Amino acid sequence: MKQPVVSRRALFTGGAAVVGVASGLAAAQAIDSDDTTGTTGPAAYAFRGEHQAGIVTPAQDRLHFAAFDVVTDSREELVELLQAWTEAAERMTAGGAAGPIGPTEGDADLPPDDTGEAIGLPASRLTLTFGFGPTLFRTPKGKDRFGIADRQPKVLRELPHFPADALDPERSGGDLCIQACADDPQVAVHAIRNLARIGFGTVAVRWSQLGFGRTSSTSTSQETPRNLFGFKDGTANLKAEEPEALADHLWVAQGDDPNAEWLVGGSYLAARRINMRIETWDRQTLQDQQDIIGRTKQTGAPLSGGEEFSEPDFAMPGRGGPIIPVDAHVRVVHPTKNDGAQILRRGYNFVDGSDDLGGLNAGLFFIAYVRDPEKQFIPMQTRMAQSDAMMEYLKFTGSALFAVPPGTRTGEHVGAALFA
Amino acid sequence: MKQPVVSRRALFTGGAAVVGVASGLAAAQAIDSDDTTGTTGPAAYAFRGEHQAGIVTPAQDRLHFAAFDVVTDSREELVELLQAWTEAAERMTAGGAAGPIGPTEGDADLPPDDTGEAIGLPASRLTLTFGFGPTLFRTPKGKDRFGIADRQPKVLRELPHFPADALDPERSGGDLCIQACADDPQVAVHAIRNLARIGFGTVAVRWSQLGFGRTSSTSTSQETPRNLFGFKDGTANLKAEEPEALADHLWVAQGDDPNAEWLVGGSYLAARRINMRIETWDRQTLQDQQDIIGRTKQTGAPLSGGEEFSEPDFAMPGRGGPIIPVDAHVRVVHPTKNDGAQILRRGYNFVDGSDDLGGLNAGLFFIAYVRDPEKQFIPMQTRMAQSDAMMEYLKFTGSALFAVPPGTRTGEHVGAALFA
Repeated sequence: MKQPVVSRRALFTGGAAVVGVASGLAAAQAIDSDDTTGTTGPAAYAFRGEHQAGIVTPAQDRLHFAAFDVVTDSREELVELLQAWTEAAERMTAGGAAGPIGPTEGDADLPPDDTGEAIGLPASRLTLTFGFGPTLFRTPKGKDRFGIADRQPKVLRELPHFPADALDPERSGGDLCIQACADDPQVAVHAIRNLARIGFGTVAVRWSQLGFGRTSSTSTSQETPRNLFGFKDGTANLKAEEPEALADHLWVAQGDDPNAEWLVGGSYLAARRINMRIETWDRQTLQDQQDIIGRTKQTGAPLSGGEEFSEPDFAMPGRGGPIIPVDAHVRVVHPTKNDGAQILRRGYNFVDGSDDLGGLNAGLFFIAYVRDPEKQFIPMQTRMAQSDAMMEYLKFTGSALFAVPPGTRTGEHVGAALFA
Repeated sequence: MKQPVVSRRALFTGGAAVVGVASGLAAAQAIDSDDTTGTTGPAAYAFRGEHQAGIVTPAQDRLHFAAFDVVTDSREELVELLQAWTEAAERMTAGGAAGPIGPTEGDADLPPDDTGEAIGLPASRLTLTFGFGPTLFRTPKGKDRFGIADRQPKVLRELPHFPADALDPERSGGDLCIQACADDPQVAVHAIRNLARIGFGTVAVRWSQLGFGRTSSTSTSQETPRNLFGFKDGTANLKAEEPEALADHLWVAQGDDPNAEWLVGGSYLAARRINMRIETWDRQTLQDQQDIIGRTKQTGAPLSGGEEFSEPDFAMPGRGGPIIPVDAHVRVVHPTKNDGAQILRRGYNFVDGSDDLGGLNAGLFFIAYVRDPEKQFIPMQTRMAQSDAMMEYLKFTGSALFAVPPGTRTGEHVGAALFA
C-alpha cells in the first residue's frame, strides 16, 4: 500500500502543517515507552517550552554533540533549515521519526525521510538543544551573511586563549550547534545524524563528540556521577530545583543586552574538550589526588569534613597549611572565590581511541551553561588555568561558545525571534 | 583506619593468593545488583569457564576494544602481566575493583589499585575476552621474543589485503587484544583503562575503539538490532543455543592445528573497522537500499518473503532478475554461497567525530569469531569485496586477527597453556 508522500523539499517548506504530526508508530512509541530506567523523569521530554530542554533537564546518560558550519549565504535557506530542524526535533524527542513519513512507510522510489536505526527504540528522554555561534552573525572576516550582525550579543565572541589551551581548530568553533542527550546513545546518534542529513547542502558537520557517561547532575533527584579521575564531579552545580539561582546565573534576562532581546530566556553554552592525562593521574597517591581535588575520593566530601554536600571550610588548618590546599580544585572554582559566580555544568566522559603515547585519548567534554560568559565562565576558567593544581593533568583540545535561544513556542521555529 | 597494603608490584607477583578475593564493597555489588535491564542474562558473568566469556555470551550493548603492543622482550614480564590481568579481570567482571584493595580503601600514601570511576556501579554484565595477535609469536622482522614462535597457529597471520581496504596502520594489528563488553560503557571503559594501567611498562595501547550500540545478537533470546544503514544486521548469525553449529564453526578442536593444541576450545577473532558512507546511503531510495541488503528495512525479512528468520529464496524471480538481486548482501555472504561457512558476529556501531567531508566518521566495528579464518572469514570477505553491492558504501579502515585462547581454569592465567 502506497502512502501519501512528502518529499524532502516539502519538509523544508511545509511549515506548521506537519508540526506535531508523528507517524502512528512514533506516537505509539512515545506513549507505550517502558523506558523508566537510567535517569529520572518522564519517558519523553516536550521539545517546546519556555526554555529549551536539555539544559536543566535531569542530565541523561549519553551525549552526541555536533557543531556545524553553514555553507550557504542565503538567509532564506538558513531559516528553512531551522524550520525543518524544529519539526524533526519535535518529532524525534517524542519518540517519532525524523520525517513525517518515517523510515519505511513511504514511496519505495524515494529516499526515506528517516534513516531507520532507531526503529523500535523509545524516546529515551531525548533532548535536542540548539545554539548559535559568533560566526553565524559575522564571519571571521567580518561578513554579515544573514543580516543579523546587529543582533549579535556583545558577549558572544570567541573564547580567549587560556593557559594549557592546545586547541585543535577542527574541534573548535562552529556557526551552529546541537546538543543531543538521551538515555540510549543510538537515539542521540540517530537524532544528530538525521538533522545533519536534513541540513545537507545548507550545513556541514564541523566537529562532533560522543560522550558515554554523564559527569554532572542537573537535578537534586540525581546522584553525582564520577569523572575519569574517579571523583564525583560538579557537586556544587546549579540544579533545576533552584529557580532563584537559575534566574541569577543561568537565564539571560530582559535588559542584559539591548542588542539581543531575542535571547531573553536563553543562555550561553561554553563547550571545552578536556583531555585528561589519566596515565599520569593514576600514578599519584590517593592523598595527592584528594589534595588536588579538595574532596575525598570515596564520598566526595570536602577534605574539611562532613558529607558530599557539606560546605567546604577553607580556613580549617591541616598539616603545613589549610586542610583544603590553596590550589585545590574545589577552592579555586568555588563561588565564594569567584564573586559568587555559579554555572550549570553538563559534562560527559569521553574516550576517542588512543593517543601517541600508548595511552587512551580520554577526558571530559565539559559543557557549561551561563547567563553571562564574561562574568561567569571566563573569569572562572582563567582562575583555574592560573592556580588550579588539577591543570597539570589537563590539556584543552577543543573550545566553542554558543548563544542558546529560549524555548520554541508553538508555531515558531528555533531562533524565530532572532530572524523576526 | 589503615588497611593491609598490597603494592602494584605485589599485584604482579602475588599470584593465586588474591584470586577471587574481591573487596566487601565489590562482593556486595555483584550480589545486590538490580541491573536487570539492557540485555538478557544474569547480572554478572563468571570470568572462568570452558570458553572465554564475551563470545557466545548474549551480546551486551556497549563495547570498548583495545589492542596492545608488548614493549618488553621478557617472557617473564609478559607472563606476570597475564597473571595480573587474569586476577583483575576476575574481580572486575564480578563487579569488584581492579585491585585487591580498591580505589579508596588503601594506604593514602600509595596510588590506588583501582581508578575509581566505577565506584557504586554494578557488574553490568561485563565480559573481558583476551586474544593473541600474530606479532606476539613473531615480530614483523621474524624475532621470537617470547619463545612461542613454534606454537603460532598456521592460520594466525596478518589478514590479506582486500579490495576497498584503506587501512590505517594505527587502527590495525596488535600483539594482544582485550574486548570489553558491558551494559554500561563506563564499566567497559573502566576495565580497559585499569588493565592498561596494570600493564604500564609491559604493554602500550596500540589502538582502541568504543562501540555505542551492538549490531549483533549472539543468542536467540535477543532481538536483532540495527546498524547505521538502518537495517537489522546479522540475522543469520551463529547463536549460543546451537551447540553443534558452534562446534563446527566456532571453537577450535583437537587436531585442527598440531602447532596449537593450546588453542583447543578457543577461537579466532577478526576485527574490521568499517566506515560507512552514510551520507551517500541516505540519498538512496528505500527500494535501492533493500535491493542492496536483500531484506526489507522494516522487518528484516528476505525480499523473497516471510519474516526475519525465513530462509531467503534466491531463485524467486523479480523484475528483470531474481527478487533478491545477484549482488545483494544477504546472498553474497549466505552460508549456502560460501561452502556452508558460518561465523559468529559481535559487531558494534561507532561514531568517532566527523570526517573531512562535513559528515560523521561513523560505521560498524565488525568482530567475527571463527574456528578457521582461512576457511570462513577470508573467503567470505573476499567474496563480499568482489561482488557485494554494499561495498560501494563501505571503506575498511582497520583490521586485525587474534587467536582467542580457551577459557581460563581455576588457578591458571589467561593463555596458560600457551606458556606452559
